[in-house]
Amino acid sequence: MNDKQKKPQKLKARLPRGFIDRSAADIRAVNEMTAKIREVYEHYGFDPVETPLFEYTDALGKFLPDSDRPNEGVFSLQDDDDQWMSLRYDLTAPLARHVAENFNEIQLPYRTYRAGYVFRNEKPGPGRFRQFMQFDADTVGAPGVQADAEMCMMMADTLEALGIKRGDYVIRVNNRKVLDGLMEKIEVSDPLQKLAVLRALDKHDKFGADGVIQLLGTGRKDESGDFTKGAGLAQTQIGLIIPFLSGSGLTPADQSRSRVRPLIGRPSKEDDILWVDNSWNSIEAARGTVGETPSGNAGIEELELMLALFEQAGYGPDRIAINTTIIRGLEYYTGPVYEAELLFDVTNEKGEKIVFGSVGGGGRYDGLVSRFMGQPVPATGFSIGVSRLMTALKNLGKLGQSEVIEPVLVTVMDGDVESMGRYQRMTQELRAAGIRAEMYQGNWKKFGNQLKYADRRGCPIAIIQGGDERAEGVVQIKDLIEGKRLSGEIEDNASWREARVAQETAAEADLVAKVKEILAAQTEDRARAGSNA
Amino acid sequence: MNDKQKKPQKLKARLPRGFIDRSAADIRAVNEMTAKIREVYEHYGFDPVETPLFEYTDALGKFLPDSDRPNEGVFSLQDDDDQWMSLRYDLTAPLARHVAENFNEIQLPYRTYRAGYVFRNEKPGPGRFRQFMQFDADTVGAPGVQADAEMCMMMADTLEALGIKRGDYVIRVNNRKVLDGLMEKIEVSDPLQKLAVLRALDKHDKFGADGVIQLLGTGRKDESGDFTKGAGLAQTQIGLIIPFLSGSGLTPADQSRSRVRPLIGRPSKEDDILWVDNSWNSIEAARGTVGETPSGNAGIEELELMLALFEQAGYGPDRIAINTTIIRGLEYYTGPVYEAELLFDVTNEKGEKIVFGSVGGGGRYDGLVSRFMGQPVPATGFSIGVSRLMTALKNLGKLGQSEVIEPVLVTVMDGDVESMGRYQRMTQELRAAGIRAEMYQGNWKKFGNQLKYADRRGCPIAIIQGGDERAEGVVQIKDLIEGKRLSGEIEDNASWREARVAQETAAEADLVAKVKEILAAQTEDRARAGSNA
Repeated sequence: MNDKQKKPQKLKARLPRGFIDRSAADIRAVNEMTAKIREVYEHYGFDPVETPLFEYTDALGKFLPDSDRPNEGVFSLQDDDDQWMSLRYDLTAPLARHVAENFNEIQLPYRTYRAGYVFRNEKPGPGRFRQFMQFDADTVGAPGVQADAEMCMMMADTLEALGIKRGDYVIRVNNRKVLDGLMEKIEVSDPLQKLAVLRALDKHDKFGADGVIQLLGTGRKDESGDFTKGAGLAQTQIGLIIPFLSGSGLTPADQSRSRVRPLIGRPSKEDDILWVDNSWNSIEAARGTVGETPSGNAGIEELELMLALFEQAGYGPDRIAINTTIIRGLEYYTGPVYEAELLFDVTNEKGEKIVFGSVGGGGRYDGLVSRFMGQPVPATGFSIGVSRLMTALKNLGKLGQSEVIEPVLVTVMDGDVESMGRYQRMTQELRAAGIRAEMYQGNWKKFGNQLKYADRRGCPIAIIQGGDERAEGVVQIKDLIEGKRLSGEIEDNASWREARVAQETAAEADLVAKVKEILAAQTEDRARAGSNA
Repeated sequence: MNDKQKKPQKLKARLPRGFIDRSAADIRAVNEMTAKIREVYEHYGFDPVETPLFEYTDALGKFLPDSDRPNEGVFSLQDDDDQWMSLRYDLTAPLARHVAENFNEIQLPYRTYRAGYVFRNEKPGPGRFRQFMQFDADTVGAPGVQADAEMCMMMADTLEALGIKRGDYVIRVNNRKVLDGLMEKIEVSDPLQKLAVLRALDKHDKFGADGVIQLLGTGRKDESGDFTKGAGLAQTQIGLIIPFLSGSGLTPADQSRSRVRPLIGRPSKEDDILWVDNSWNSIEAARGTVGETPSGNAGIEELELMLALFEQAGYGPDRIAINTTIIRGLEYYTGPVYEAELLFDVTNEKGEKIVFGSVGGGGRYDGLVSRFMGQPVPATGFSIGVSRLMTALKNLGKLGQSEVIEPVLVTVMDGDVESMGRYQRMTQELRAAGIRAEMYQGNWKKFGNQLKYADRRGCPIAIIQGGDERAEGVVQIKDLIEGKRLSGEIEDNASWREARVAQETAAEADLVAKVKEILAAQTEDRARAGSNA
């Protein structure tokens, strides 16, 4: 046996594929964001309720989006009584189970919200994770589209509460019944062909009317030469869809897609170069195509009522717009569907400027609770993709504004019980005074490491007490920010700053007061630097 | 085919065993609690970091507590590349993986905290769930017991920040090295027998010295006649442990266990009737038994240093006490262990008064990160059981104090577009003014149901506008709290309350102002009722 074999094999530290650790900055950003979302939902009269991460597999149903993709699915395992359990893939199916299970105790309409992790057993990719957080709101037991309208307004208010300004977002609304009417009109009944048609329409936003027309027919070849098979519709069928598309208002004249915006009134000549949402245009075009089908007509009436509610409540098309090419992936929607789009530009991984796009959406799912019940239970709700929205807000500089001050470091010069006790007491005194503080907890014997730690961690102040200082009852207080300051700064503040020195000696009894004074001076420094920037 | 066969089978809505849904009250209580805990940890200089719910099974290791119990274990499944993944059973093993995986980027000592769900694939029972939340704090890269001492102080501060008063809790501290010394002294080396001895010691709190002595020997029969097999020690071995036990300070003189408390100084004659913690007694008794063993001596020295730090920093034995019979379940601890005990009485399911007991604990785990590394990485940390602590705080009336006002209900009398639009606008105006409000979203046609809904939901006010009111541009504002008020209330406030009427008519333009006025009056009512109660 050689040495190599004798050496115990070291365990490799690695995360399962498609999962990530979350940093302090991300956690703080998400907490800040979800607190604001929660506040809006509470104002709208919603209460929190949460379900566990596991459900029986049959209770989740087969509603996973894009269920024809390979490697898709849920994480499932068998319990010791042989029943299959799965980790939830969204927050809607578990809510439906919760309502059905507690139907006699629940007061309808039941207005609730929840944030939580969901899981997809899919092939991971860049930016594609197998665990992610959603933030949902739902109203169960609400038969009318006024409940859907409320959801759209709540989404709009939420985005504004998060600091996204009007014009930088739009809530787009459609109705599945309009799409059902379209299928009736073009006489498509095969479920797979229906899906292909919906997929093609869903690309209106991305490829424009021309692209959609190709995808409705034989197929479309992209710039790289990749071919996507089409829905295989006949020319007569496609001919019926073209006016429907034109009215939906999205025109692909601007290839950069950098000027998507909602439009009030009928588009002018000038507006034609923009991608625009125009609610009444979209409804009229849809009416022309599907108005005479029963489903289409019902859908159009619902869209009209919603639009009236938006206008009455002061939510113009610059906030909520009807757009009849919005699809939403999930198969269980039965009426209105809605989507929150962010309209500002970001640079993608290829260096291209693209519109940020969807951060969430939802719709009416009248069949989901009633699967468990002997009676119909209408419901509507939506879901926000938390990490996508966080990314958007970071892009806008709307998160992490509230600065986190790193702790004051009490360094350790001597390791005897008496000295340690004094360092510990100083640390506790700082904390008791409301100051973030810590005693150095690494190997204290190399003092250089302690200051290096303070520097890397961004500590604002270091407290030092060696034997001489201890004998005199004093401490050294080192202003680490002052020490770091670059010379070429705001000239006219020089005299003010000169009053501050990088290190000073203070009586142990004055420690807290002195630290407070330096922290306040540093805060003022930052404010001055900020206002002069 | 008969009718019964044709009827589609209804899906049963039920949660998997051992999992529960969380109510609004519980969610709000946990949020309130974790926010306070977070604030203390941040003050101590800890930053958040989180890991996902899955880890590779080998990375979790075999550190599950009580691993000899049947049905214990983790939830595991195989990934599509055949690697086994498991849901984390605690937050410590994933943190160790995280540190090892990112060792080059992480600045040591690494001070972090996290709250999250953990999973145990165990047989569920009353109050025993398979998904529950822990809140952890850890310092990695901290070799000295001053880091453990800091954890104990942070636990004490956290409990006080949550409103638990001094004397109602104690942090109990021991050191695994003392227990190792005990094993050396009594010459027990078989791992299973060691475990049996530790289990016996762990029952000191519950059965007193007599019970422990039985469990160290052949075994113990409880009141119901159930027999627990003992560790099988010889009388000479047990004889060595008895003085060790006596010094730990817990004396079972009071059978109700209702007067456990930490003691400052040496117990007096009177104190003997109490269960007491006495740090110096405990250390001296341990020294007598294990002081001459290398491990035991090292452990005692560490306990002495920690005790000195506690005393210096002002944490007396009424807050943190040394107790050498504290065990803690997890097998990976290597040095100090500590446990947060709540000392007040609660009534258990059998109607007996018992001390609330442990709400969390932790210890030093120097081996957990280094499993992945070629070098030692010392670490210490603790975990709070979130739902147990929440139960404790509810018992003390320390949670849910901040009242949630239910929404103002805008009722629906007419379903036409124009009327709906007005109800919606009123609702949005109330919300915009910062008032929790909702429009009735159920089937509006039965008006009685709307008021029943408002009543059950606890809505403070209902807004009503029928055709006549609409024509006049007014609304009816119904004070639902006033309507509910019982007659036999505070006499001397009668005249004040007479000024308030249960329903009044207001101009639509005055809606917001009027609602604010009524809500303010209701708040004052509650304050008066409270002060007269």
